[in-house]
Amino acid sequence: MHELKRLAERLVAGDLSAEEFLCRRKSPEIADGGDAQVDLDRSRRCGFPEVVFAQGKTVEAMEKIFKALIGHGLDVLATRMSAEQAVELGRKFPDGCHNPIGRTFRIPLSDQQPPDDCTGRVTIVTAGTSDLPVAEEARETALWTGAEVNTILDVGVAGPHRLTANLPQLRGSDAVVVVAGMEGALPSVVGGHVACPVIAVPTSVGYGASFGGVAALLGMLNSCASNVSVVNIDAGFKGGYVAGLIAKKVAEAR
Amino acid sequence: MHELKRLAERLVAGDLSAEEFLCRRKSPEIADGGDAQVDLDRSRRCGFPEVVFAQGKTVEAMEKIFKALIGHGLDVLATRMSAEQAVELGRKFPDGCHNPIGRTFRIPLSDQQPPDDCTGRVTIVTAGTSDLPVAEEARETALWTGAEVNTILDVGVAGPHRLTANLPQLRGSDAVVVVAGMEGALPSVVGGHVACPVIAVPTSVGYGASFGGVAALLGMLNSCASNVSVVNIDAGFKGGYVAGLIAKKVAEAR
Amino acid sequence: MHELKRLAERLVAGDLSAEEFLCRRKSPEIADGGDAQVDLDRSRRCGFPEVVFAQGKTVEAMEKIFKALIGHGLDVLATRMSAEQAVELGRKFPDGCHNPIGRTFRIPLSDQQPPDDCTGRVTIVTAGTSDLPVAEEARETALWTGAEVNTILDVGVAGPHRLTANLPQLRGSDAVVVVAGMEGALPSVVGGHVACPVIAVPTSVGYGASFGGVAALLGMLNSCASNVSVVNIDAGFKGGYVAGLIAKKVAEAR
Amino acid sequence: MHELKRLAERLVAGDLSAEEFLCRRKSPEIADGGDAQVDLDRSRRCGFPEVVFAQGKTVEAMEKIFKALIGHGLDVLATRMSAEQAVELGRKFPDGCHNPIGRTFRIPLSDQQPPDDCTGRVTIVTAGTSDLPVAEEARETALWTGAEVNTILDVGVAGPHRLTANLPQLRGSDAVVVVAGMEGALPSVVGGHVACPVIAVPTSVGYGASFGGVAALLGMLNSCASNVSVVNIDAGFKGGYVAGLIAKKVAEAR
Amino acid sequence: MHELKRLAERLVAGDLSAEEFLCRRKSPEIADGGDAQVDLDRSRRCGFPEVVFAQGKTVEAMEKIFKALIGHGLDVLATRMSAEQAVELGRKFPDGCHNPIGRTFRIPLSDQQPPDDCTGRVTIVTAGTSDLPVAEEARETALWTGAEVNTILDVGVAGPHRLTANLPQLRGSDAVVVVAGMEGALPSVVGGHVACPVIAVPTSVGYGASFGGVAALLGMLNSCASNVSVVNIDAGFKGGYVAGLIAKKVAEAR
Amino acid sequence: MHELKRLAERLVAGDLSAEEFLCRRKSPEIADGGDAQVDLDRSRRCGFPEVVFAQGKTVEAMEKIFKALIGHGLDVLATRMSAEQAVELGRKFPDGCHNPIGRTFRIPLSDQQPPDDCTGRVTIVTAGTSDLPVAEEARETALWTGAEVNTILDVGVAGPHRLTANLPQLRGSDAVVVVAGMEGALPSVVGGHVACPVIAVPTSVGYGASFGGVAALLGMLNSCASNVSVVNIDAGFKGGYVAGLIAKKVAEAR
Amino acid sequence: MHELKRLAERLVAGDLSAEEFLCRRKSPEIADGGDAQVDLDRSRRCGFPEVVFAQGKTVEAMEKIFKALIGHGLDVLATRMSAEQAVELGRKFPDGCHNPIGRTFRIPLSDQQPPDDCTGRVTIVTAGTSDLPVAEEARETALWTGAEVNTILDVGVAGPHRLTANLPQLRGSDAVVVVAGMEGALPSVVGGHVACPVIAVPTSVGYGASFGGVAALLGMLNSCASNVSVVNIDAGFKGGYVAGLIAKKVAEAR
Amino acid sequence: MHELKRLAERLVAGDLSAEEFLCRRKSPEIADGGDAQVDLDRSRRCGFPEVVFAQGKTVEAMEKIFKALIGHGLDVLATRMSAEQAVELGRKFPDGCHNPIGRTFRIPLSDQQPPDDCTGRVTIVTAGTSDLPVAEEARETALWTGAEVNTILDVGVAGPHRLTANLPQLRGSDAVVVVAGMEGALPSVVGGHVACPVIAVPTSVGYGASFGGVAALLGMLNSCASNVSVVNIDAGFKGGYVAGLIAKKVAEAR
Repeated sequence: MHELKRLAERLVAGDLSAEEFLCRRKSPEIADGGDAQVDLDRSRRCGFPEVVFAQGKTVEAMEKIFKALIGHGLDVLATRMSAEQAVELGRKFPDGCHNPIGRTFRIPLSDQQPPDDCTGRVTIVTAGTSDLPVAEEARETALWTGAEVNTILDVGVAGPHRLTANLPQLRGSDAVVVVAGMEGALPSVVGGHVACPVIAVPTSVGYGASFGGVAALLGMLNSCASNVSVVNIDAGFKGGYVAGLIAKKVAEAR
Repeated sequence: MHELKRLAERLVAGDLSAEEFLCRRKSPEIADGGDAQVDLDRSRRCGFPEVVFAQGKTVEAMEKIFKALIGHGLDVLATRMSAEQAVELGRKFPDGCHNPIGRTFRIPLSDQQPPDDCTGRVTIVTAGTSDLPVAEEARETALWTGAEVNTILDVGVAGPHRLTANLPQLRGSDAVVVVAGMEGALPSVVGGHVACPVIAVPTSVGYGASFGGVAALLGMLNSCASNVSVVNIDAGFKGGYVAGLIAKKVAEAR
Repeated sequence: MHELKRLAERLVAGDLSAEEFLCRRKSPEIADGGDAQVDLDRSRRCGFPEVVFAQGKTVEAMEKIFKALIGHGLDVLATRMSAEQAVELGRKFPDGCHNPIGRTFRIPLSDQQPPDDCTGRVTIVTAGTSDLPVAEEARETALWTGAEVNTILDVGVAGPHRLTANLPQLRGSDAVVVVAGMEGALPSVVGGHVACPVIAVPTSVGYGASFGGVAALLGMLNSCASNVSVVNIDAGFKGGYVAGLIAKKVAEAR
Repeated sequence: MHELKRLAERLVAGDLSAEEFLCRRKSPEIADGGDAQVDLDRSRRCGFPEVVFAQGKTVEAMEKIFKALIGHGLDVLATRMSAEQAVELGRKFPDGCHNPIGRTFRIPLSDQQPPDDCTGRVTIVTAGTSDLPVAEEARETALWTGAEVNTILDVGVAGPHRLTANLPQLRGSDAVVVVAGMEGALPSVVGGHVACPVIAVPTSVGYGASFGGVAALLGMLNSCASNVSVVNIDAGFKGGYVAGLIAKKVAEAR
Repeated sequence: MHELKRLAERLVAGDLSAEEFLCRRKSPEIADGGDAQVDLDRSRRCGFPEVVFAQGKTVEAMEKIFKALIGHGLDVLATRMSAEQAVELGRKFPDGCHNPIGRTFRIPLSDQQPPDDCTGRVTIVTAGTSDLPVAEEARETALWTGAEVNTILDVGVAGPHRLTANLPQLRGSDAVVVVAGMEGALPSVVGGHVACPVIAVPTSVGYGASFGGVAALLGMLNSCASNVSVVNIDAGFKGGYVAGLIAKKVAEAR
Repeated sequence: MHELKRLAERLVAGDLSAEEFLCRRKSPEIADGGDAQVDLDRSRRCGFPEVVFAQGKTVEAMEKIFKALIGHGLDVLATRMSAEQAVELGRKFPDGCHNPIGRTFRIPLSDQQPPDDCTGRVTIVTAGTSDLPVAEEARETALWTGAEVNTILDVGVAGPHRLTANLPQLRGSDAVVVVAGMEGALPSVVGGHVACPVIAVPTSVGYGASFGGVAALLGMLNSCASNVSVVNIDAGFKGGYVAGLIAKKVAEAR
Repeated sequence: MHELKRLAERLVAGDLSAEEFLCRRKSPEIADGGDAQVDLDRSRRCGFPEVVFAQGKTVEAMEKIFKALIGHGLDVLATRMSAEQAVELGRKFPDGCHNPIGRTFRIPLSDQQPPDDCTGRVTIVTAGTSDLPVAEEARETALWTGAEVNTILDVGVAGPHRLTANLPQLRGSDAVVVVAGMEGALPSVVGGHVACPVIAVPTSVGYGASFGGVAALLGMLNSCASNVSVVNIDAGFKGGYVAGLIAKKVAEAR
Repeated sequence: MHELKRLAERLVAGDLSAEEFLCRRKSPEIADGGDAQVDLDRSRRCGFPEVVFAQGKTVEAMEKIFKALIGHGLDVLATRMSAEQAVELGRKFPDGCHNPIGRTFRIPLSDQQPPDDCTGRVTIVTAGTSDLPVAEEARETALWTGAEVNTILDVGVAGPHRLTANLPQLRGSDAVVVVAGMEGALPSVVGGHVACPVIAVPTSVGYGASFGGVAALLGMLNSCASNVSVVNIDAGFKGGYVAGLIAKKVAEAR
């Protein structure tokens, strides 16, 4: 703090530009997790703590980050985790739950359960069986944001029986995530039934002219339903994050 | 016929290969319409006479072709016709009907009305107002194939009230043409309701990432409905032709 | 109602499938506005009444739709309106306000002002001067959803002075719309500063390898900020709609 | 049925909107096949029962679905089946025939053979040896629709001897499927010889600028033959389905 | 020449690297035509003199270049010439012949007619009427190379009557240029009939998924006929040049 | 011949259309090689016998085809041959020469050596080491066409020493094949030095924005050298074929 | 300054985070130029003052910005300026020089001429006449950075006489800008001759498969010359800026 | 030398064109390294000796080239080297240092260390952990050019703490290389902070609509920072080369 004061005096004296002041001041809000830094201030700025992208990280590096997050009372979420990584981390963090389909690892802290009416409500809808891994990543992420999550699986555009069968639940959501490959038309159909934001997640499922999800992505961007916005192909994490964020905002205001 | 006989004798004698025989024989089935030839044999081979692509053709050239077709008792259909061309041709062919939205010119011959149960039934469905020109081209073409044509306009995927309100008519069709831009999801929705072939026509309507109809085209190619096949962007003519052809085949068999 | 009862009896008796029941029942919730139908039920289903896409519509058709909406106590919003259309409609609806930059026409009803703490807060950020038309469409749309809207203009990524100068306002928003062309990096920068959802709207501004907004679109889809979702290129309406919808959900819960 | 009556009464009384009525009514037409549902009503709506996409499904799940279909007297067709899946299912369904090239598994029911003149006629044409797997999928699917199927293999555009040698058979078809990679020109050539619909299936065969079937797809979409419509790249199933559907419609009318 | 000698002496002495020698030597083979240089040595190196790309050039600049070429006894060919440019140049070069469809201007020198058996033979084939401008540019260019040029117009793939009717002429060619838009399948068909090289020129004619000639280009690159090579979209000049060059090589050897 | 006569009589009598005549006549010029047919007439029509695409063919099928070709005195060329296929075929055809880099198998017949001045001259130029497999396929193909082939390897655009060092040889060629990946600029440089046709073969060598040869392909299509035409990516066979064909035409005329 | 002190005290006391401190402090370094702000601090940070993008700006707005820049002793450069804008601004700033080809407006201040050996040296090379506008924008920008600029025009890859004729000048440059459309091969050729950085600017000149400069862009990105980096299509300004910046760095160190 | 003199005499006498002279003269500046030639003159022309692209080269071939380079006192750099190649070469060149992450092999010569103020200064910035291999290739290359290299790792755009913490170092650089995947926005942010050239290297890191680095590439090309130029995707070598070249030019002038 001493150092900070000295810098501030130089700043006021005009010796230092504000920018130089900023970059000399040592940021106390960033914990050093070895190779990758942990941005502990993020939770205040962005509403949620940092999420760990496991792919390419060593178990040791992740262990450090997890401990730093837990030490600050923050829930842990890691995505794109391999089965091998999960086994090792599971030994060290027995409270962690590994979702092998969604490839996530989540450590919920016990004191995080909010009173019931303050919980956001997210529904996740998938078009087909092969969209499940992306949907599971979205579901784990939305759970980690503190939302209550329901899922409606295998809803086809050409035969949307399951959708109409679940309308009441769908309409009670604060935000809906629709995960679909191929033509990507499902978000429009869902969007026409609900009065809340719909986050569309295109998947790389499909063959031929689906072009690894591009057809679905274009379909979703051109959706005729006004309440549909889109995230990247296979970006289950981002879909769950945005939906959870909206749900949290609404729930906090309730 | 004399010449043909002589050629055939040489063919049999081995003087001429079959291929040489074919290319020396003067084809009597092609009428010379000036710049562009009229393939009068086509009607027998392909089920329908030739259609005139008006764009870039002179009125004189078209007049010749029209007369040749009428002279052989064939219905006339011209597509991509400008208002200027239509005015002039309308003077010369007062029975011709010009569709300014679909940019077609059609001259139906009076003796072509088949008994009612032999008429094919085509329904044309559009997603929005701006799909109308392409739908009208499809409608005129299907009429020209001899089909009875109904239309269901302005059916949105996010609110398909009009579609369900017209299900009986839709289900009575021999073939359905769905004309849609933007995300191109309507054919899947229609395809899930009918047991006949659906011809999807993507339109270049839309903006942004619709890429002049490519988004709609990809959506339609990736349709999850098994009975959907696709024609080129803005190809109202081809959509109406294929649907009319199917309807004719079914009606002729009735 | 009589007819409905009769149909329901047949349904219960098994004479009618539920689906047939539905399509025979005449939908009382759709007003006939001539060429285009007005979906008056939409407001209940989707949270907001239907928006009029003016491009290609006649003034007469729009007049009918506007009157139908006003007659049901609904705010009017029309997008992609030409100056010519606006002049004529302005004579007939003197309360309407035409935004020539955003090409919108809006008729707010006087009894729609909610108590202050129930108003959603939307901030719109633009990267450069040429993004203004899209931003204005977003602003008019967000106003029409009932939100209070602030704008921060001309925030370049390479010199984000204006952004940091407006951080408090930005952080007080329920949702933020970021409108940007060229590289599309601004949503990431904004997303790193706020704890609410960011709706990114790519614009077709730029030249060379910006490909009519595709570079910006890809940049936004690949954003490293987790709270960013994306709508179509130049889709100011959809950006304003999604942001207004989120803000309304949060404000209603307040 | 009791429940349905109660719901209908509330509907007539205005307590329930028609839509709410529909979604509360429990759909009796969907059999629960474990992970994936079997839409038994589909056969009535769409003309054919549901087809099983084997890829990614467990043998157990498929066994359940197959039994549900057979139990309702419906023919079974599964596509994209691996050799491993086929071996296990072959033990359980000894009447099933596995096509290892087309990767299909089909169980025909004995009482399905229609009188001869009621059988649709489908011809499948391939451009080269490498198009065979897609063609076989199309053939199996067309057989499953009840059609009589003939094939003409290895017809190159640059040397179409085999095509002309098979013209009479080709011209007797109700619908033709053309499977081709590389430049995708064969459907145009075939389309010029027949008076029935041609379904073009582009294949991902080829190298260099064939771009995994895109060159063939574009060629087919731009075909100058009016009777050609197109399905997705490698979509042998859809090609066979649409052709079989057309043939069935024609044959039923005969 | 004095200067050259001095430089050569320094080169031999090692004072100058060969490269420096080359760039100091003043090139006598380039005539200065004002803004654009005329490469008079080209004729020796490349077999033909330089061709003038008229677009964007002033009439004065072209007049200079034309005179320089004529002064060296070289035939003049200018492409992409506007009607306005042609009128003015026609006054100054009354022997010049302007082709308004192909947008070329050519000045043949009288002493260039070779003995008959030394003339190369080029045939130009077009798919449709709209390919004519590109074909005319190709024809003028091939004439300028000294070839005898025949044309076969309006040969559609779906009905190649005209092609078979002209087989003898086609087979007598030294090189064939095929100009086609849409699907670009014609070169394959032609390539299967002749034993000489086929130069395929895709045209930007077409609509929808023809993508300004890309579909035709891809079709031609993927041609199954081994004797087909391709030039750029709408590159009539290059097609005529390569064909004329081949024909000249063959004719010179005769 | 009897049958042919009868058909011809019916043709002359008008019983048979010429087309029907043609397709009923049994083609004696096609030998049946099992799965794939051998087009023995091709040599007369196209100047060269058929080439065997080995990929996906059984050794047995190829053995049959090879024998049929040899039996008619035709040179054998097979491309895309695996090492395994080559070993087995090498045992059966000890005169065959296998090129493992170019993946070709060629059986030259002894009596095919033409007098020296009748041999065409082809030069093959490569940009880098990794272009060698494509260049070798081109070289083997050109040898099979009867040409004398020289190669100039590893010529970089940024340092074309080897090219200038080989100018005399290059300029003595009847046709040049340039094989290059990355930017694809080498054909332009070569094209500026020679007066014969240049066949450009883009290769899929490279990384990043080379897009599997697309960058090279586009560079070659846009070449500023007029004598450059292009074949498909990695199409060494077609490059060697077209060059060999041109060289043969010139040599035969010599 | 008083305010700043007070903020700094709160910062030191921990009342304010450093970030809040920064955004409350009013930035004195940004002059308000009406619609668009002028970043006067930029010159210190980035080495050069801000450049004005004229397109879409009013003359009044630009006048304000120009005066602010001149008032701080900074050279003015505006790009993408129309002739109309230039005429009006020319009246107000008679020292300004308008380049109508490059569409720039530049006001050099008299006291900016550095001693001769401190001037950077930039050479600009173009492939063809149509690249001139982009090259002129680059030239004006490099002049504005204080560099001495030479140009070598109309250098073709297939006949690079002009390049070799200008090697000494080229090799004396601190940085070279190469402006080229079509195949984009010129930067590689230039890059092989010089030992300084080459900035490649692709232009949208060309037709067919040049795709508005994409072919040139890809060619340049894949350049085999190691010293070539690339800027956006038609980005003459950026090419001149980067080259001028490099030249300035080198000249300042001299 | 004798031969050279004779050639020069013929050149002066007019017997030989300058070009023929050049290509007959045997180039003494190219050492023959077996399969691939070593261009020893390159160092003089281009500032740096040739770099070895190890991929696809044998260890023997590289050993020859390395020895040739060392024999001429030149530093060795090889890129894209496998671990297997490196082990073998490490035995033969014990001074060589292998960077397994960047896949480089470098042999620095002891007498190359310049006096300190003559060393260029390069900083390399990466966006995330997965950009490290490309950054390491850039770092090794810049070291090989003689520059002093610093790195700033893991700077995300949404949280650029590390960047501001390293501003003084960044601003002291002669050139900066920014390596980033995903949206590619980091170069703009860095470019706004420094007054030296920024070389942007897009990486193929990312998923979904990052399209193997295309999204990053487009973002970088459209950067709003004027001092940013771009190299190919994953082209760490070229990024380090251009930066090292700039730094060397500046340092040499110091």
